[in-house]
Amino acid sequence: MKNKKVAVIGGSRGLGKWIAKFLKKEGFKVTITSRDHEYGRKVAKKMGVKYCENNIDAAKSSDIVIVSVPIASTVKVIKEIAPHLRKGSLLLDVTSIKEKPAKAMEKYVPNYVEVLPTHPMFGPRITSLDGQVVILTPIRKSKCLNKVINFLKEKKARVIVTTPKKHDKMMSVIQVLTHFAYICIASTIEKLKINIKESRKFASPIYNLMVDTIARIVAQNPHLTFSIQHENKEGEKVRKLFIDIAKKMNNIIENNEKEKFIEEVRKAAKNLDDIESALGRSDKAIAALNEEIKKLKKSVGKEVGLKHIYSGKVHVGILKEVSPDFVVLKSRKMTLKLKTSNIRILNKKELQKWKIKKFGTKKFDISVIFPEKCDPNVIAKVVENEEGVISAKIIDVYKGEQIPQGMVSITIRFEVLDKKYYQNVKKLLEGLGAKIR
Amino acid sequence: MKNKKVAVIGGSRGLGKWIAKFLKKEGFKVTITSRDHEYGRKVAKKMGVKYCENNIDAAKSSDIVIVSVPIASTVKVIKEIAPHLRKGSLLLDVTSIKEKPAKAMEKYVPNYVEVLPTHPMFGPRITSLDGQVVILTPIRKSKCLNKVINFLKEKKARVIVTTPKKHDKMMSVIQVLTHFAYICIASTIEKLKINIKESRKFASPIYNLMVDTIARIVAQNPHLTFSIQHENKEGEKVRKLFIDIAKKMNNIIENNEKEKFIEEVRKAAKNLDDIESALGRSDKAIAALNEEIKKLKKSVGKEVGLKHIYSGKVHVGILKEVSPDFVVLKSRKMTLKLKTSNIRILNKKELQKWKIKKFGTKKFDISVIFPEKCDPNVIAKVVENEEGVISAKIIDVYKGEQIPQGMVSITIRFEVLDKKYYQNVKKLLEGLGAKIR
Repeated sequence: MKNKKVAVIGGSRGLGKWIAKFLKKEGFKVTITSRDHEYGRKVAKKMGVKYCENNIDAAKSSDIVIVSVPIASTVKVIKEIAPHLRKGSLLLDVTSIKEKPAKAMEKYVPNYVEVLPTHPMFGPRITSLDGQVVILTPIRKSKCLNKVINFLKEKKARVIVTTPKKHDKMMSVIQVLTHFAYICIASTIEKLKINIKESRKFASPIYNLMVDTIARIVAQNPHLTFSIQHENKEGEKVRKLFIDIAKKMNNIIENNEKEKFIEEVRKAAKNLDDIESALGRSDKAIAALNEEIKKLKKSVGKEVGLKHIYSGKVHVGILKEVSPDFVVLKSRKMTLKLKTSNIRILNKKELQKWKIKKFGTKKFDISVIFPEKCDPNVIAKVVENEEGVISAKIIDVYKGEQIPQGMVSITIRFEVLDKKYYQNVKKLLEGLGAKIR
Repeated sequence: MKNKKVAVIGGSRGLGKWIAKFLKKEGFKVTITSRDHEYGRKVAKKMGVKYCENNIDAAKSSDIVIVSVPIASTVKVIKEIAPHLRKGSLLLDVTSIKEKPAKAMEKYVPNYVEVLPTHPMFGPRITSLDGQVVILTPIRKSKCLNKVINFLKEKKARVIVTTPKKHDKMMSVIQVLTHFAYICIASTIEKLKINIKESRKFASPIYNLMVDTIARIVAQNPHLTFSIQHENKEGEKVRKLFIDIAKKMNNIIENNEKEKFIEEVRKAAKNLDDIESALGRSDKAIAALNEEIKKLKKSVGKEVGLKHIYSGKVHVGILKEVSPDFVVLKSRKMTLKLKTSNIRILNKKELQKWKIKKFGTKKFDISVIFPEKCDPNVIAKVVENEEGVISAKIIDVYKGEQIPQGMVSITIRFEVLDKKYYQNVKKLLEGLGAKIR
């Protein structure tokens, strides 16, 4: 892998940028291209990858070429670079529809190049592939397919292999239908001039989670959202069916045809696999959010570590205030106001780990006299369990003239976060009846 | 409170049953009525409350009357019982719309009765009022209002006070619009013959959470769902606007009017208050679900406690298998297959607490000889920190003839989960150089 050259066409923004960064970290030699050379060069420099002004040149000199441009441009780019791809090289695209790019690959890409239309089901905000879905839609026999699958599985991604047609059909529901409905809900709320913030106060926690998922969809890159609607061949059929059903259901309600309404809802519910699990999962999701607010509220006045869920940055200080919207943290240097939704409170172990990494540890040796029948390892373990102690081990056991009859001298080397903990260890050992030498 | 008599009209099922159970536990004298006497009597007996065959009789003899019948019957029931309500008594209803019952109360209920149209924003699956929203829409000056508010706040509910009109307007979005759109999504998926279980495999975690929230709405009592649509005066306007917007958006997409589409989405997004928080919260909800699956997977082969999230029942055993759908738990007596979505894994402390409650503890006294300069409390603390030990305290400190010079005898009383831990404590103390007497 380490020597493979990868070109990411459109690698300066969004998912392409994420892929370039990720592959760089994995040891590939990465080149990116961009429509905006000045910006592209800046991004490449920051990521430590090569920049190339020309898609064809980038493609020519690479073992793997990944097309990560807007859906509407994907076919054009495939056509542009196809004749210049190396023998035995691999071409992938990562757009949200698969039939169109797959057909373009079939048509324009020579047989001596391997092709793999791909749809990563995640956006550039994720921090690892663990648990993420990647859909592969191979259209030719390929020697690379298994290598790609193994690579992704090693990174703990969930890999789905299917056809471009099946992919687009599933996406006509998973993306086209849900995005369309959610955008129409959001637009209706806007036209009604309902204040969303106020509505959240009136509502149950599940409504808040619903609004959050709606906001998530509506806040996506609107160019991408448009393409997902416009480029999927099944899109129009699905949207029209949805509108027809909405009209029919509205008529049923207006005509007070309760039994008919119930019949339709029952049929729809029956198709939604396991309702009980759906309830359980969404209840648990809500409970987890409440649980965290409770934990934060309990920690007011105490030292906490708050980790930003996207940047990974940790802020440590005294927690001053907690509300569902904001938390206020006071550290030695400053007072910070952070969004509650974007931070996670570290547990004791995580906070300790962060402190060790940030401030290092102090090591001390202490020699103590215990009865000779003692077990030095038990003593070391007891020291290790003391608050603030990170590790403890025996480095010497000594019996001799200076040591009273029936006694033994033990030297323990222990590591603490701060030297103030030395006193705790000393008190602990004295409390056990030991004499400090 | 303890002496107040409460009648729950329609207290044998759904939310009414939940309210009756809850108020019984709070110390009220509860009577329920039901349309189905045989069933109602059975439920009343099981809950330990009174049953009354007649709404009027139940109302006549109560200080507080809560109407919890389907929306369509609420006005009828209010009219039926109104002339029979006691002077100074309080009448509430708990339906999902407020204008209609509020008007009925104004019209039929005498002025010497207090009235309070109420909408609890939760269903009968919740286990406590903590964090739940209750909307009160008072229409007359009332001496009881503050009492009700204080009672609910004591139970940690979030109380909203507003007018029936404002309530119904907010619900036309919070309930009418979202339910309507979600039902239409579910029905579209069904008509397209898409297998939801398969679609989940293709999709990102956020899609799974979206499907879960859709399933949640579609799986509600369809009679209630219908009434929420049909009885809200604003309902038709909102549904029609939603359908018009869907038609318009579909045309925009079909005509490839990208800029217009983006403009509409941007406007809708702007109205959705804080998008960044919405992303953070939904990401955290997903992360919490993943986190739990990871914790479960790590615990395979080990002893775990799994708590059912609704019944609260705890199952303890060796975890044999974990999948996103099921876990298999082997206990002494049997092998259980449980839905992953409906259980929560207990942490160490919770599991220990459960074991203490279930099996009790064993107490032991141990006398040991330590150097006289020791601190018995430090020793007790070290014993308490040993695995399996629940508590430890010093019950005797003794110096005397039988004790060697410079030494002291300490008797520690400690409590363990199982007698096997006695040996651990003995080994610990011997490891510290103590002699067991």
